[in-house]
Amino acid sequence: MKSSVARPVTRWANGEPSPADDRVAVEEPLEIRIGEKPLAVTMRTPGHDRDLAAGFCLTEGVIQHPDELVGIEPCIEADYGNIVVVLLTDEARQRRSSEIKGASRELYVSSSCGLCGKQSIDRIQQCVSPITNQFTVQRSVVQSLPEKLRAAQATFDETGGLHAAGCFTPSGELKMLREDVGRHNAVDKLVGAALLSGQTPMRQRILLVSGRTSFEIMQKAAMAGIAFVAAVSAPSSLAVDFAKAMNMTLIGFLRPGRMNVYHDAGRLVE
Amino acid sequence: MKSSVARPVTRWANGEPSPADDRVAVEEPLEIRIGEKPLAVTMRTPGHDRDLAAGFCLTEGVIQHPDELVGIEPCIEADYGNIVVVLLTDEARQRRSSEIKGASRELYVSSSCGLCGKQSIDRIQQCVSPITNQFTVQRSVVQSLPEKLRAAQATFDETGGLHAAGCFTPSGELKMLREDVGRHNAVDKLVGAALLSGQTPMRQRILLVSGRTSFEIMQKAAMAGIAFVAAVSAPSSLAVDFAKAMNMTLIGFLRPGRMNVYHDAGRLVE
Repeated sequence: MKSSVARPVTRWANGEPSPADDRVAVEEPLEIRIGEKPLAVTMRTPGHDRDLAAGFCLTEGVIQHPDELVGIEPCIEADYGNIVVVLLTDEARQRRSSEIKGASRELYVSSSCGLCGKQSIDRIQQCVSPITNQFTVQRSVVQSLPEKLRAAQATFDETGGLHAAGCFTPSGELKMLREDVGRHNAVDKLVGAALLSGQTPMRQRILLVSGRTSFEIMQKAAMAGIAFVAAVSAPSSLAVDFAKAMNMTLIGFLRPGRMNVYHDAGRLVE
Repeated sequence: MKSSVARPVTRWANGEPSPADDRVAVEEPLEIRIGEKPLAVTMRTPGHDRDLAAGFCLTEGVIQHPDELVGIEPCIEADYGNIVVVLLTDEARQRRSSEIKGASRELYVSSSCGLCGKQSIDRIQQCVSPITNQFTVQRSVVQSLPEKLRAAQATFDETGGLHAAGCFTPSGELKMLREDVGRHNAVDKLVGAALLSGQTPMRQRILLVSGRTSFEIMQKAAMAGIAFVAAVSAPSSLAVDFAKAMNMTLIGFLRPGRMNVYHDAGRLVE
């Protein structure tokens, strides 16, 4: 299991493009099951999956003591290794059943199934068709976006602890900015504000996020109709694969004088 | 609703401490309900909660079109404003019910309830008592940890996209390092590896994370018995409040020549 993979990228530096193979962090869903029952799906970097499942069970209170863990095994149905099965003692299973019954809640179904990255992308493709609208953005406009976002961020400079998401027109005008401790929340706030003011789908918008891009961010953008995503930091493997599958533009490491173009989709012009 | 609040901190710079009021990003749970049924709990920065709920419903496929949203209201039971109720059209509700039935999954109950930060802390306190073990760590040792973590990180330098979590002895020896696209996963992998090798609770360990500290990270540390948490970036308000409630040490902005001590708990010495 590799924690990083190569993806072709066009690196821009000092106004010059060069093709390169960029290493990106691998992101794949892992489904953790208690016996036959799904417990959680987490988007993780493959490797140390048994550790992850054991740690999750302890830190989320599924087990109260290491002795309650009988074993952790890969799921034999899943040859791609993205399901692990946790076996608990009878006592721990019974306690857990009664806890769940007590909570009696309908809970959030993660948008990424516990299968593999390819299938997670397929699921979103069933909801949204690849985005075909073609507007273009000048590279110099893209390069100017982070500075505009930072200038408009009210809270970040105070705390150093908030993620920002901004949406821009193709000519680079900031239309809205939202901040949150959770980067997915910042995107949801932005999309929700557009929705509540009758501005979805956001077909003529560029999304800029202050951090990294993951499957979740790309999926949220696609669901909102946004075809152009730029980020100050790195994308995951699944963000890059998603961009290609959905015909979205994805830019990473957008910093003064440079950027990495992971997928262009014909929207970036000089 | 404020997006940042002041918390007292001891700032160390150039070997000198000074007391200050630090602004930290507010983190509070928000429960999103569809009618009377809980849909999701997300840890968010208060403000724009209606936008967040609307955006979440669209980007996670709960609604397929803005017209399916009849309204978004605060929950009248919750005077602290951390529950929002989304009202859908009958058609959208019915489609959703059948989707959920089709999925027929038992899903992960988030460890933070949808109430407020105080009550989220109370819930963890019911599982874990405030941590009373007293080891001490020299400030110079703490200052040396990030460099040791970075030196041992195999993948970060390749991708710029992985979070790291490391655990150290009180004398500053790195015992284990895990990397992941999800910072919570990196901590779970670390805790799980300790658990599977019979080394939990991790009472004599310092946890260092490469990013920010949130409620979730602090809760995972506490559940694993770790009393000393340091981070390269900022904590949230709830991370600071949690550290105080649980008698944990919390250090942020741990960078060359400086650090912010949000709670000391008597474990930091010269």
